[in-house]
Amino acid sequence: MGPSSPVTPASANARSGKNTTNSNGAYRKPSAPSDNGPEEPVVRKSATYRHVVAIHSQVRHSCLSRDADNAPSFMGFRNLMVVVLVAMNLRLIIENFLKYGVLICIKCHDYRKQDVVIGAILVALVPCQLLCSYFIELAASRHAMRIIGQAKKKDEVFNESRRTWFFIALLHSVISFSGLAATSYAIYYYINHPGIGTLCEIQVIIVSLKSYSYALTNRDLRRAMLGSPSTAFDIPALYASCPYPRNITIGNLTYFLLAPTLVYQPVYPRTPRIRWSFVGKRLFEFVCLAVVIWLLSAQYAAPLLRNATEKIAVLHVGSILERGLKLSTISVVIWLAGFYALFQSLLNGLAEIMRFGDREFYTDWWNSPSFGVYWRSWNRPIYTFMKRHVYMPLITRGWNPTAAGTVVFTVSAVLHEILVGVPTHNLIGVAFMAMLFQLPLILLTAPFGKLKTPLGKSIGNSFFWVTFCVVGQPLGTLLYFFAWQAKYGSVSKTHA
Amino acid sequence: MGPSSPVTPASANARSGKNTTNSNGAYRKPSAPSDNGPEEPVVRKSATYRHVVAIHSQVRHSCLSRDADNAPSFMGFRNLMVVVLVAMNLRLIIENFLKYGVLICIKCHDYRKQDVVIGAILVALVPCQLLCSYFIELAASRHAMRIIGQAKKKDEVFNESRRTWFFIALLHSVISFSGLAATSYAIYYYINHPGIGTLCEIQVIIVSLKSYSYALTNRDLRRAMLGSPSTAFDIPALYASCPYPRNITIGNLTYFLLAPTLVYQPVYPRTPRIRWSFVGKRLFEFVCLAVVIWLLSAQYAAPLLRNATEKIAVLHVGSILERGLKLSTISVVIWLAGFYALFQSLLNGLAEIMRFGDREFYTDWWNSPSFGVYWRSWNRPIYTFMKRHVYMPLITRGWNPTAAGTVVFTVSAVLHEILVGVPTHNLIGVAFMAMLFQLPLILLTAPFGKLKTPLGKSIGNSFFWVTFCVVGQPLGTLLYFFAWQAKYGSVSKTHA
Repeated sequence: MGPSSPVTPASANARSGKNTTNSNGAYRKPSAPSDNGPEEPVVRKSATYRHVVAIHSQVRHSCLSRDADNAPSFMGFRNLMVVVLVAMNLRLIIENFLKYGVLICIKCHDYRKQDVVIGAILVALVPCQLLCSYFIELAASRHAMRIIGQAKKKDEVFNESRRTWFFIALLHSVISFSGLAATSYAIYYYINHPGIGTLCEIQVIIVSLKSYSYALTNRDLRRAMLGSPSTAFDIPALYASCPYPRNITIGNLTYFLLAPTLVYQPVYPRTPRIRWSFVGKRLFEFVCLAVVIWLLSAQYAAPLLRNATEKIAVLHVGSILERGLKLSTISVVIWLAGFYALFQSLLNGLAEIMRFGDREFYTDWWNSPSFGVYWRSWNRPIYTFMKRHVYMPLITRGWNPTAAGTVVFTVSAVLHEILVGVPTHNLIGVAFMAMLFQLPLILLTAPFGKLKTPLGKSIGNSFFWVTFCVVGQPLGTLLYFFAWQAKYGSVSKTHA
Repeated sequence: MGPSSPVTPASANARSGKNTTNSNGAYRKPSAPSDNGPEEPVVRKSATYRHVVAIHSQVRHSCLSRDADNAPSFMGFRNLMVVVLVAMNLRLIIENFLKYGVLICIKCHDYRKQDVVIGAILVALVPCQLLCSYFIELAASRHAMRIIGQAKKKDEVFNESRRTWFFIALLHSVISFSGLAATSYAIYYYINHPGIGTLCEIQVIIVSLKSYSYALTNRDLRRAMLGSPSTAFDIPALYASCPYPRNITIGNLTYFLLAPTLVYQPVYPRTPRIRWSFVGKRLFEFVCLAVVIWLLSAQYAAPLLRNATEKIAVLHVGSILERGLKLSTISVVIWLAGFYALFQSLLNGLAEIMRFGDREFYTDWWNSPSFGVYWRSWNRPIYTFMKRHVYMPLITRGWNPTAAGTVVFTVSAVLHEILVGVPTHNLIGVAFMAMLFQLPLILLTAPFGKLKTPLGKSIGNSFFWVTFCVVGQPLGTLLYFFAWQAKYGSVSKTHA
């Protein structure tokens, strides 16, 4: 490129040129393109453009290079992810339609009349379990009032009545357990349709947990009233408006039965009024999501599961993996829709109708960096129940947290197995094992929860999604569906 | 729930209870669970736990409700998107493998010997075009120096030599055009393999653009040296180290030929030294990405395209849509890999070897909220060439920006059609029309670029991705592949 000279003859000549118009007519005004880069050259209209602009005027780095001063934003790739996800799923929808046509059919969705009748009977009978609890509690409270009327030496009286209290606790346990057992028995042997069975099973589990909470809370309130020496603890200020035994009424119990909580309190925080527009929106959401879930299950999940069972039967690993991964997407979508429908729409709508104030039915579980955080945040009603009535009592008795946690997850595992296994008539223990498997997962992912960096949290969160939604749920669904198919043959046959 | 009383007999009793130990042994210490929520109850070991804690102690909102004070973070859903994308694509990989087995085969990838020979000849000959430009420019510079030596009245001399300058411009144009035309002719009629053809076509287009830039820039430098009265413009300070005609050397030209730019400057910003580790990393990236692109094309895109042509032939809309959407994902991935391989790895590696300073080969086009921004940012070498040698000259002559932009995109459309149509032996005009279609798209999406809100930008960006990567590219690929199949039958036959 030759040696340089500060001012060259050429540029000196150029600068000395006069500003005249020649015969060509094109060279009217001198143009002075700036050499500060190509973005904003100083150009006047009708001036002659010069092709000498120094486009490459300085050392610059590619923005993806490490040399670059500032990393560029990657928001565009987030948008691309959304676009690709939509495109991929749209394609699957078209593929599904080309392959199967429309599978959704309201009239074909038949069930035995017996299922509906028994289901309706169970739905009507199960709340009676809570009514029994009420009568037991009523008797206990009367007995307690009599004691207060009779005696002054409370310690003695309390100890004398120990048998009564034991008997009451026993009665509560028997009622609670037998209600759950009898209903599950009826569902397992007499309700064939898994949907109806699941609804009944959910109801009986909820009512059983409620009656358990009702009995335990009232027992402690009664103890507090009797002034047992060991009961020198404060009754929460919130309960002052309805002290024991004034809370033992049918009205109070009915409120607890209908309120979106599993934890009994004589008094709950309340909202001042019912916003019916709020209720309407939530119920509309719930109905829409329920329809979406039904459509997705019937059109996408059902044929997938049917195909998959053939592959499971011949144990072809590649095909099982392929089916599992395909199922995982639809399973995540159904799961998210179900979560929103139940925890946001249904429970919020119900809470609004009941003027129930505490709407923390979930916290932001989708950001969970570890399984521990997930289980504490996704289903707050069960979590608070377990914490109040299972975990904390054990901790107070000196158990270590791991042992107490194991008990909580064992109880939860039993309930999950009942919830899934009874309506599908397959108590194969997969749900039970899956819940117990959460314990090592919680321990394993605990370190992620303690990381402060966004990357660390993201890794933990991604691990959670993979384990839970991509591997866990499709696997569980496949296994129960396979067990169902193995027992009853294809779904269509059982409906015939 | 009955009327309330501030201090109830029960709680009064409870508070008056003494702290003694009874025969049971369990009631050793009074526990005082806080009623401020369940998170941190004040519990001492061996204390008796009370089931009366007010879990629901205040009015709280679900975090997804509008009533909630703070919207929760949704980072978890971003992670879920990544997980689902990985899962869906992993499934497609397994499905593809189960369906086709391994399609990658190095030995099967045959081509005619003639293709390689002619390709090699073209690769060797094409740079000679630039050599011709050099000799023309050398003659012109000698002529200019003679004029400077002979005369003082520069205006007259310049006008006398007008015919010489016109002849030189004509020669440059003929060389540049005939080089492009002859090479394209050779590729269209004598090179069957589209890959080899594309490489040769890219090279000839690059060299033609370079020779165009070389001629125009030197013309204006020459004018400046001759001091034509209309040339009273500053030569960029950067060029001072190599004034005209000292830049007319084989060395200077060779640097321009190899440098990663289409815009000729006598002098470029340079880096102080070659970092060979940087070069090594970039070339390693390039090789890896090239292999990835080849694998993706052979294993995923090729069978997809083959299947798709059958559907196009019978014009089944649903199937074409389904194939197009399936193709879009793989097309986006190949596109992104190709972008990174060429613009980040190859051009940066080449720039490092050439100690070429200005590495702004692209800016963050993936965030483009509009098509205008995209075309300005994704391929900076072409953009700067078009701006310097096509767009700005027209604007300077008083054209309005839309008309000048139309010319730019028409030139670009011709080049794209040549680039795609010649190696595939199908000048069907799809690439041409696609480029011209960018003009309405740019006008249509311009409002998105002016939006300041993140949502507005995201919508514009998503529209860009959908139009460009989900609809545009797969459609174009399908059409050219279909045209190829219609002309030559299946790919395997043409290779036989």
